[in-house]
Amino acid sequence: MRRVTIRDVAAEAGVSIGTASKALNGQGKLRAETRERVAEVAERLGFAPNTLAQALLAGRSFTVGLITTDSFGRFSIPVMLGVEDALGTGQVSVFMCDTRDDPERERRYVETLAARRVDGLIVSGRRIEPRPPVVAGPGIPVVYAMTQPVGEDGPAVVPDDEGGGRVAAEHLLHGGRRRIGHITGPERFLGARMRAAGFGATLAQAGLRAHGGVRFGEWSERWGREAAARLLAEEPGTDAIFCGSDQIARGVADTLRAAGRAIPGDVALVGFDNWEPMALGAQPPLTSVDMCLEEVGRVAAGLLLAAIAGEPARGTRRVPCRLVTRQSSRPGPTG
Amino acid sequence: MRRVTIRDVAAEAGVSIGTASKALNGQGKLRAETRERVAEVAERLGFAPNTLAQALLAGRSFTVGLITTDSFGRFSIPVMLGVEDALGTGQVSVFMCDTRDDPERERRYVETLAARRVDGLIVSGRRIEPRPPVVAGPGIPVVYAMTQPVGEDGPAVVPDDEGGGRVAAEHLLHGGRRRIGHITGPERFLGARMRAAGFGATLAQAGLRAHGGVRFGEWSERWGREAAARLLAEEPGTDAIFCGSDQIARGVADTLRAAGRAIPGDVALVGFDNWEPMALGAQPPLTSVDMCLEEVGRVAAGLLLAAIAGEPARGTRRVPCRLVTRQSSRPGPTG
Repeated sequence: MRRVTIRDVAAEAGVSIGTASKALNGQGKLRAETRERVAEVAERLGFAPNTLAQALLAGRSFTVGLITTDSFGRFSIPVMLGVEDALGTGQVSVFMCDTRDDPERERRYVETLAARRVDGLIVSGRRIEPRPPVVAGPGIPVVYAMTQPVGEDGPAVVPDDEGGGRVAAEHLLHGGRRRIGHITGPERFLGARMRAAGFGATLAQAGLRAHGGVRFGEWSERWGREAAARLLAEEPGTDAIFCGSDQIARGVADTLRAAGRAIPGDVALVGFDNWEPMALGAQPPLTSVDMCLEEVGRVAAGLLLAAIAGEPARGTRRVPCRLVTRQSSRPGPTG
Repeated sequence: MRRVTIRDVAAEAGVSIGTASKALNGQGKLRAETRERVAEVAERLGFAPNTLAQALLAGRSFTVGLITTDSFGRFSIPVMLGVEDALGTGQVSVFMCDTRDDPERERRYVETLAARRVDGLIVSGRRIEPRPPVVAGPGIPVVYAMTQPVGEDGPAVVPDDEGGGRVAAEHLLHGGRRRIGHITGPERFLGARMRAAGFGATLAQAGLRAHGGVRFGEWSERWGREAAARLLAEEPGTDAIFCGSDQIARGVADTLRAAGRAIPGDVALVGFDNWEPMALGAQPPLTSVDMCLEEVGRVAAGLLLAAIAGEPARGTRRVPCRLVTRQSSRPGPTG
């Protein structure tokens, strides 16, 4: 069954499309008789209130494009949920566009979205690294979430990785640990460097440094297993390990268990990401730093709505991380 | 900067909105002079080709709504990527709507999408369980992916869980295993029952049955650890275990290792989901059944496009699963 369009209503009522549109939107100067006839025809034909037509007249579409390079992976999903939650409740609909990290695909998406007259764009990434800016055209503001535009002063919203490193260090120091190692991902990642920096700064305030040095490597369980084995061999007195991801922490836990070290009795363990399937499945369940990615998405959506309303922001906002404590760093009996 | 609308163009050109629209779309009977004046004004004001206006005239919006109850979780994301891939390349844009399993929120989304004149809807779920049908209104076809409508004969696209159980059993039998246990999720899940049924049917053809019986429980590593400990105690001769998820298989692997059983030397292990962070991080990496969820999404998108073009489908289509073999079930040296 074909959908009834404003053209059908106009034809049936014997008026122009513009007149039919004005009549249905209560705008313009029309005779009451015309307005009534159009309304009657619209009802009879089953012409529903049409957001498209309203948007056309208002110059706003009440839609927003969400572009991700991350194939809606583990990091962009919570960001996306936050965006969608903040906008959806305000009756703004979200177009999802997965560029699969292909610049040509991204270009086509941006063109399509501009033609659809989106009111704005949110560009989301896998990590907080800078990326080339997206230019959608005049009147279409862009806000970055979990990534930052190269050569521009935002507007961007990212998690506070440095603060995340600080809360992990504070927690372990507070638990009486003094020989705290750090095993993390590749040094080329800004997030890994910032977590290490926050962690190191907090230890320095206590007159300490990363026990055995910061060990950059991979974002994998295998690296966690390898690096922990080396750390234990070189620094057998290690009494805690802060890991740059929960996957790394899982690998570290395997090595500690194989070496007969109790977690947290002998060595306390803190991960990063609070990725629940990983953190809860560990033996024992992992204390982890949560980046509050939904909040990152909500803040980005708020900035975009403000920009659409004519109040664009600048700069990079950092959303605080939150420590979720579980048995791997708690005193007491553990699995 | 406010976006230029068709209203601005019409006012500046001194014509009605309907006339401006016709002029820009090359439709209707207008004087060449009028058409040229409108085009000139549109260009001068920077009025871009407007998909909204074209859609309004065509009675199609070239948009589709994607509704998920799964908060875009691990199962709905690949489905969504498949949908978006199949539609995006055909210039259909996708509205994302996360209902968070709230019927009221779902109702509002469906209303909003209908008002936006989406051409169709895809409804995606967490598991293949049936759910109440979505009614979007006349002329808006609905296709289900990873879920099925209660009391209606589709159209739905789901993975072939039963076939997944069969390929796992065939693989282990082919590797010479004869005492094959099965540890899986809760019996109330249709997917868990179908995997067990396919697995059991293939064993039966070889004159065997699930060694130690099918053990239904939870979708967790903890359940995998517990169930494997019981299975080893009751059936110490077990030479392979097929698990209903990779998380369960991770738990089983931990118990096997703690009990000194070599994987796959003593006990071969096959998981389900092919969830890479879990499967690759395991010691050794897990053989697993992949549900090809992107293909589920692509097939659903294809059915929806056909329905929009006037050729609706019925029934439930099952997309074959694919076995991905890794060290946990392979002969040869392992970690």
